[in-house]
Amino acid sequence: MSVPSPVLARFEEQLGRWLSRFGGDSPVYEMVAYHFDLAGAGQRGKRLRPQLCLLVAEAEGARVEAAFDAAVAVELLHNFSLIHDDIEDNDRLRHGRATVWARYGVGHGINAGDALCSMAYLALLENAARLPEERVIVMSRLLHEAQLQMCAGQALDMAFETAPAVDPGAYLQMIEGKTAALFRATARMGAVAAGAAVERVDAYGEMARRYGLAFQIQDDLLGIWGRSEETGKPSLADLRKRKWTYPVVWGIAAGAGAVEALYRTGAGLDQGQAEQARLTLERAGAREAAQAALDRYLGEAEAIARECGLDRDGAVRTFLAQGGRRSA
Amino acid sequence: MSVPSPVLARFEEQLGRWLSRFGGDSPVYEMVAYHFDLAGAGQRGKRLRPQLCLLVAEAEGARVEAAFDAAVAVELLHNFSLIHDDIEDNDRLRHGRATVWARYGVGHGINAGDALCSMAYLALLENAARLPEERVIVMSRLLHEAQLQMCAGQALDMAFETAPAVDPGAYLQMIEGKTAALFRATARMGAVAAGAAVERVDAYGEMARRYGLAFQIQDDLLGIWGRSEETGKPSLADLRKRKWTYPVVWGIAAGAGAVEALYRTGAGLDQGQAEQARLTLERAGAREAAQAALDRYLGEAEAIARECGLDRDGAVRTFLAQGGRRSA
Repeated sequence: MSVPSPVLARFEEQLGRWLSRFGGDSPVYEMVAYHFDLAGAGQRGKRLRPQLCLLVAEAEGARVEAAFDAAVAVELLHNFSLIHDDIEDNDRLRHGRATVWARYGVGHGINAGDALCSMAYLALLENAARLPEERVIVMSRLLHEAQLQMCAGQALDMAFETAPAVDPGAYLQMIEGKTAALFRATARMGAVAAGAAVERVDAYGEMARRYGLAFQIQDDLLGIWGRSEETGKPSLADLRKRKWTYPVVWGIAAGAGAVEALYRTGAGLDQGQAEQARLTLERAGAREAAQAALDRYLGEAEAIARECGLDRDGAVRTFLAQGGRRSA
Repeated sequence: MSVPSPVLARFEEQLGRWLSRFGGDSPVYEMVAYHFDLAGAGQRGKRLRPQLCLLVAEAEGARVEAAFDAAVAVELLHNFSLIHDDIEDNDRLRHGRATVWARYGVGHGINAGDALCSMAYLALLENAARLPEERVIVMSRLLHEAQLQMCAGQALDMAFETAPAVDPGAYLQMIEGKTAALFRATARMGAVAAGAAVERVDAYGEMARRYGLAFQIQDDLLGIWGRSEETGKPSLADLRKRKWTYPVVWGIAAGAGAVEALYRTGAGLDQGQAEQARLTLERAGAREAAQAALDRYLGEAEAIARECGLDRDGAVRTFLAQGGRRSA
């Protein structure tokens, strides 16, 4: 069960309508439109976050209309972060197309992301016409706080690139910011849009945060053990790029000394080294440890939902459990 | 008369207090703090915008306290744009110190700017404790709209770098976004903080917009005819970098063919070419044309203030006229 596709179709329509409001003589509008490629036939983002927002609002008794602006805002903010991450991570391709900076240059990439950032919050403020003002202010604050936490996580992730070692605590802090914060804010915004009480808003946030962490660890697992057809990335890509992911951090903590030595050199791994590293991580139990952590987070999410009486028909969890088990 | 320095001192204190609220294990906080260098003894920004915000609020009968959060927000947003502009313009120095990206790398520079962006709006939302919620929403919208216009202007400015020719209309559009939009939003926010009526809010915006345009043209004049000691930049820097500025665009439109030919090559100018270009522009009357445009905008600002009964004791205009006549 995900959001019934008519709702997703209506979300896409809202998103397209919102983006089409912005235009003018500056080339920045064309760049933002290029990123979304709404008229194109190519692969899209999965719209995980906006669907989460809409589903939580519905679970709390609101009509989806109450949360459409917030859902658009969340998706735009996510894409703002993708445009900047693509520069920061030197990624030239996304969904098989040149990234904004690869096509227009780094300067325009930064600037187009900044423009999209403002469009995200302007979408959120549209709510002021529909919802009580204090809710709009709360949602704005939640999304801005998430943006700051995402930056804190991203700075850690970039710092890891040159770090000789990364401990589990630092890794968890990184994904709390980089991935979980926006999941948490998204669910809270959906609940706020529906007018839920503060405790329920926060409980939804805590539930969604667990899914965010599980989602990231799943992504990490796929980055090492996923097949190329499944992930859309070259096999072993994360190891070859010497990325610090959950299995690597935990594998090294559990004694995978060969991986530690390879990572300590600071250089990327060649195909043979990456295959060797994968085997070493497997033998150290890193794959099982990551899977266990993932399952633990899903279990915690379930427990929160049950204890707090969230998501009574299970639509949010079913959707997230599916999303959290696929690649980004 | 500018804002009495006790108010500026209190603003600095507010700014420092706000920035000190953010911290944690991520290196991003250190980078933001590095940019502001609040503990350092070096040259600071002139805090033109926050002072404008506070002065307008006072002119509309509010105590400065009502606008402090908005003033902090405006200054932070301005600095977010500076951090990103420094990357986009490849500038390694600001106030004699390494820019954020020059010190920490492009990726961290982008990310630290994004973090500061969220801090700006969080400051604005602090107002919700002090001011009616609808005012906070209006101010948020104004600042986000200004951010988008700044991006639109910056995209044009970057596009100019490789353009064989730039016409006066495009140049004006660029500075409307890049410089005037934030001046306009700042003044409007000060008026909104004070609870002024919509027509007065907009009139203050139109007045400040003229000062923003004048301010930019003054900066353009200094970039060609300013002395190094005055501007802190190498003499003729703008011409050497082949920047499209008011005197260049108007000079070429008025027949400065030699400058047109130099700019059309797409390359920077050497010292001799830049000196020649300056002479050619002078002969074409570009300096006087720029000064006349500047005076016209100041005159329009004055007329708006008079007609609408803004700024009755003249404090805002006196402050802006001084600021607008100095370099950025």
